[in-house]
Parts: sequence; C-alpha cells; structure tokens
Amino acid sequence: MAVMQKISLLISFIFICTFSFAQKWSDIKTDAEPLVLKSVGSFYVGGETELQTRSEMGNFFPEGHITVNQMYVNFMVPQKQVDSTSFVFIHGITLSGKTYETTPDGRMGWNEYFARKGHATFVVDQVGIGRSGFNAKAYNRARNKEIEPSELPLLFRISDENTLLNFRFADSLKKALVASKFPAEAYTEFSKQSIPFTAATVTSPDVNFRNLSLLAKDLKHTVLVSHSQSGAFPVQTALLNPEGIDALVLIEPGGTGANYTDAQVAKLKNIPVLLVFGDNIEAETGVPGHSWKEAYDGWNSLIERLKKRGGKAETFFLPQMGIKGNSHMLMMDTNNQQIADLILAWFATNKN
Amino acid sequence: MAVMQKISLLISFIFICTFSFAQKWSDIKTDAEPLVLKSVGSFYVGGETELQTRSEMGNFFPEGHITVNQMYVNFMVPQKQVDSTSFVFIHGITLSGKTYETTPDGRMGWNEYFARKGHATFVVDQVGIGRSGFNAKAYNRARNKEIEPSELPLLFRISDENTLLNFRFADSLKKALVASKFPAEAYTEFSKQSIPFTAATVTSPDVNFRNLSLLAKDLKHTVLVSHSQSGAFPVQTALLNPEGIDALVLIEPGGTGANYTDAQVAKLKNIPVLLVFGDNIEAETGVPGHSWKEAYDGWNSLIERLKKRGGKAETFFLPQMGIKGNSHMLMMDTNNQQIADLILAWFATNKN
Repeated sequence: MAVMQKISLLISFIFICTFSFAQKWSDIKTDAEPLVLKSVGSFYVGGETELQTRSEMGNFFPEGHITVNQMYVNFMVPQKQVDSTSFVFIHGITLSGKTYETTPDGRMGWNEYFARKGHATFVVDQVGIGRSGFNAKAYNRARNKEIEPSELPLLFRISDENTLLNFRFADSLKKALVASKFPAEAYTEFSKQSIPFTAATVTSPDVNFRNLSLLAKDLKHTVLVSHSQSGAFPVQTALLNPEGIDALVLIEPGGTGANYTDAQVAKLKNIPVLLVFGDNIEAETGVPGHSWKEAYDGWNSLIERLKKRGGKAETFFLPQMGIKGNSHMLMMDTNNQQIADLILAWFATNKN
Repeated sequence: MAVMQKISLLISFIFICTFSFAQKWSDIKTDAEPLVLKSVGSFYVGGETELQTRSEMGNFFPEGHITVNQMYVNFMVPQKQVDSTSFVFIHGITLSGKTYETTPDGRMGWNEYFARKGHATFVVDQVGIGRSGFNAKAYNRARNKEIEPSELPLLFRISDENTLLNFRFADSLKKALVASKFPAEAYTEFSKQSIPFTAATVTSPDVNFRNLSLLAKDLKHTVLVSHSQSGAFPVQTALLNPEGIDALVLIEPGGTGANYTDAQVAKLKNIPVLLVFGDNIEAETGVPGHSWKEAYDGWNSLIERLKKRGGKAETFFLPQMGIKGNSHMLMMDTNNQQIADLILAWFATNKN
C-alpha cells in the first residue's frame, strides 16, 4: 500500500505540474562546440503503390493509387567521419524516431551524439508510425460500415501511470521510488512523445525488415540499433539478408530471443551482436505477462548460443558493470552519453 | 479526351516505374559547403493531460492519463545567425513536416536552406499528425461499439491521380501536361510523403494556433510560414496573440482570406504579411468546389485591405514576376531556392 501511495503521490505531482506544460526553448541545452555536418535531411525507403476505393480513402476522391508501407528516415552525416559505418536507430512501441532526438530534459539525443563521434546516423519511424504514415483503409471501411468495428486493427496507447512502472522510472518492487537515471523532472515532456501505436495497420509482418534491409544494402555499412518492441527487428533483418549489416545492437529488446532455431543462429553468428540492459529489471511492469527479467534471460540465451558458435556476441548488463539506476529509456537517461560511449567502444573493438 | 489520355499515360508511366521504388542514398545531393550548426534537435510545444478509459486506450491498460494536443517541433540553429528571427514552417493537408526537409529528388529542403542563410528554422507536425500523434479515443470507442462507426472523425487520403492535378504537377486546363517546375521524375517519392489526414481527431479547433503562439512567444521573433490547408494558421495565431510574431508568409494558402472582419484586419495591419502563389492557378483541381484561383483572389483581397490601412502586405504572384511553371509545392520545385531568396529579401526589407 505504501508503495502504491508513493507512486500515486508522484503521479499526482506530475499531473499537477501539467498546468505549466510547455517546454521552454531555454530548456534546450546547446553544446559548446558547433556541429559540423556534411549533410542533413530525410527520405523514404520502400513503399508500395496500392489501389484504393473511394470509401477506403475517406469518401472524397474516386478510386485511385496511394503509397503504403513506406518508412521515413531522417539522417545526419558529420563532416568528419571516423569510418563508413552508419548507425540506424529504430524506436519502440507507442513512440517514434523522436526517441533518439533531443532528450525530454533538453540534452543532445543519440542521433547527434553519434554524429559528433564521427558516424552518420539514420533515425526511422517504423512503418505505420509518425511520418511514415499508416494505411487508414480499414478505419474508413468501418466508418462506411463495410466491415465490423471489431475487425479494426488495434491502435493502443500506454497510460502515463503504466509507463512509470514499465519503463522503470518508478518501481514498486523495491518498495520505494527508484533513484532512476531517467530525468524525472521532464516526465511530462516524455509523455508527449507517446502516440497511438498504429503498427497493427501494417498487414505484412516483414515490411519493416524489408525496408531496413533496403536501407542497409544502400548504405553498405550499418549498425542496426533497436529498442524495446523493435528489439528483434535487426535480427529479423539480418536473417532476411545480412548484406550491408556490420553489427546489431539491441537496447532493452522486448519479446524473447529464446526461440531462434539452430539454423538461424548459424546464419547470425558472423555478425557482431550487442545486448544492453539497464537496472531494476526484476521490477513489476504492470503489464500482464510481461517481465523485463524474462526478456533479458531470453535474449541473453541467444547471445550465449552465438558465443558458443564463435560469434562476437556480448551482453552489457549495466548494473553488473557497476552502472546503476538506468531505466528502460537508456538513450534518454542522464548518463546516455556514457552508454553511447560503451556501444561505440564495443563496435570499434568487435567490428569485422 | 486527349487531355485525359495524356494524364492517364503519365499516371501509367509513374505506376509502372514503382517496381524500382526505393530512393537511393546516392540520389541525395550534398552541398559543397559543410553545414555549421549551433544546435539541432526537437521538442514538443503545448499538450494537455487527458484521463482515458481502458476502452479508449485500446482495451489493455486500466484507465489512466495520456497527453493529447501536443505539437512536434524539429529545429536547426546555424552557428552564424544574421538576426534573432526564427522561421517556423507549417505543412499542409495529408502531409507532415517532411514537406520542408529534403525534396523528393534529393535536394536541400527549406529547413536547411534558411539555416544556411543565417536563420534558425523550426518545422512542426500539425497537432494530430505525424510525430505529434493523434487522439485515437474515438477509434477505440468505435472498435468497442461504444459509438457508431459513422461518428468517427474523417481520416482522408488524396490519391496520386488527384495530386497530379490539384498540386498542378500536370494540368488539364492547358490541354497538355504543364512544363512544371515540380521534379516530376521524383513523383513516386512525393507520394510517399502523403499520410492520412488525422487532424479531424483534434477536437479543439484552435489548438494549433495556441501551440504556435506558445512557440512564437517563447522564441520571441518568428516568421510563421504556412502552406495550403494550413494557410490561415499564421493569421489565426496572430489574431490570438501577436506576441513574438515578426511576419506571416502564406505559401499557396487554401480556403479564403476574404472573410476577415474589419476589426481583424485592423489587428493584423502592424504585422508584415507576404502571400506567394505559383503558376497555372486557373487549372482544374479535380476537387469539387475547390479552385486555386478563388483561393488566390480571396487571400489577395486580404492583402489589399491590409495595404489600404498602411500595412506592409504584399502578394508575389510568381508568373506576373516572370517566374513561370511553379507548382503548388513551391518548397520542392526545382527553383525552390529562388523562391526562398525572394521571401528572405522581402523579409529583410519589410521587417519592423
């Protein structure tokens, strides 16, 4: 009860604070050194033309073609590159590529930090999410009573209350609020990053992997970095086609890495793989059937199998390395540059 | 008939070309000069906390709070600024902030070009669009049969066939395909930028204006640049509160500027306003009841009323200035830097 009261208090505090909700421009920190870029911009990879009916497009235009399944990619190439490897960043559930930009408390995001360290960075919005758009066909068909509302793909949201637990900003397990490295004072800013998870509108399960593979082949040398719900994306992309993939970095992947077949593990073993998990993974998540400890165990078992076959695979379990208090959002935690440096040092040592 | 046949041929050509759909990284042009930035990143303005039910969030979590009505803002501040004025770019219907980034054929977008010319640039996703997220409450309630599907807010799409006409890439009026300045070879890339128009999920009509006003007040000196469906946004924001607004630039605004009251015109007259329209505005749009010529006439009448009251208001009707062939997407046309230079020169001359 005391635990829930403390969490309730924190939540109340946060919601009371929302009267002064807007982040101030002065909250954004500026690095002392200018950022010198060769190029910056965005483009789309993949996408297919689909013929839709008047109804499917919202009852306004006669039937016609639109593009679906495209993936938005935002990039930054530093003037001085340390090598030709690009880091490709993939976000998790109910989030967008914003995950890897400026942190909720206004510090530099990983897209800029890795660029400042000499790597081209590419941040995607998953197919169906954010600037990638989504296929609204089913929605419009339901609106026109051509399908039952119950057939609509799920568009779900996570409440702020759950995020506090599940992303381990607060923790009921330790009977106290965790001394988390997540910048708690900016929690309302993080809440703004949460958007409906429209990925269920994507009918082809592998379209993200196909698009990431197109990107990797085109860029020729990539490290695919995933987070949370996108945890398996780099692995699935490498299984589809290893071309252009130099390494896989899985940041707190969800699901499980325990179910890959021996044939799949054999296919993966020539690609360096890094698994990174933060602190307090035994805490309750508030999500039925979901445990970060189980996710850790499953993915770590894949790392062990790769190691046994001679693969360059490694797990960074941060608290075991003496780094305490990291939340699920390692790229936003107050020590996010320390974590980035660990990843960069691992890649420099382990790349083929 | 000959006209429609030619358009059909163009459309067929485009759709046949979609087998090789993915843009190549090598298509992206890199400027000879590096881009030197003081800062780059993103944040959100505005947003309110809303308590939603289990059903409204997609049947997974118990009732809780989420954020709605927030606006995503991506920024770029050059190391050398010519003054303290920031350009804020607002996109149009079925598009996102991507509009002002790299063009479909891989040239520099206005967000970078204006930064290279010494101005901080801020690109937003409208409330309810792209990385700003949207309120999926009605959708989930319909899915759970708590409301009728017919009560769902419209999520509409524009077909590629219509865009060719309405955005004046091709033209049926002149009985031939226009020699348009839109980079027609990259039309399939433009199609990928089109996403469902989720703005109807925003229940408060002025939330975009409120958020833009928060941004303008915070940045202190802004030029609000709108396009197409967002045409009136800068005007409405200035009417809400002129604080922090140095000028308004309306790029091919939709709707009409003809209905403002004398009191509103009086309120606006101290803010410089620029209206910009491209070529072929008398062409058929393929949208019932919609004519670019009428939009031009309506907005131009506002400019005339402002001028009569001594306001610094001006219309750049490009073909009258000897600049032929511009489409609706002036920021993507092959002469987009020429148009940007015209806007910058106008602002330098007319700012208060």
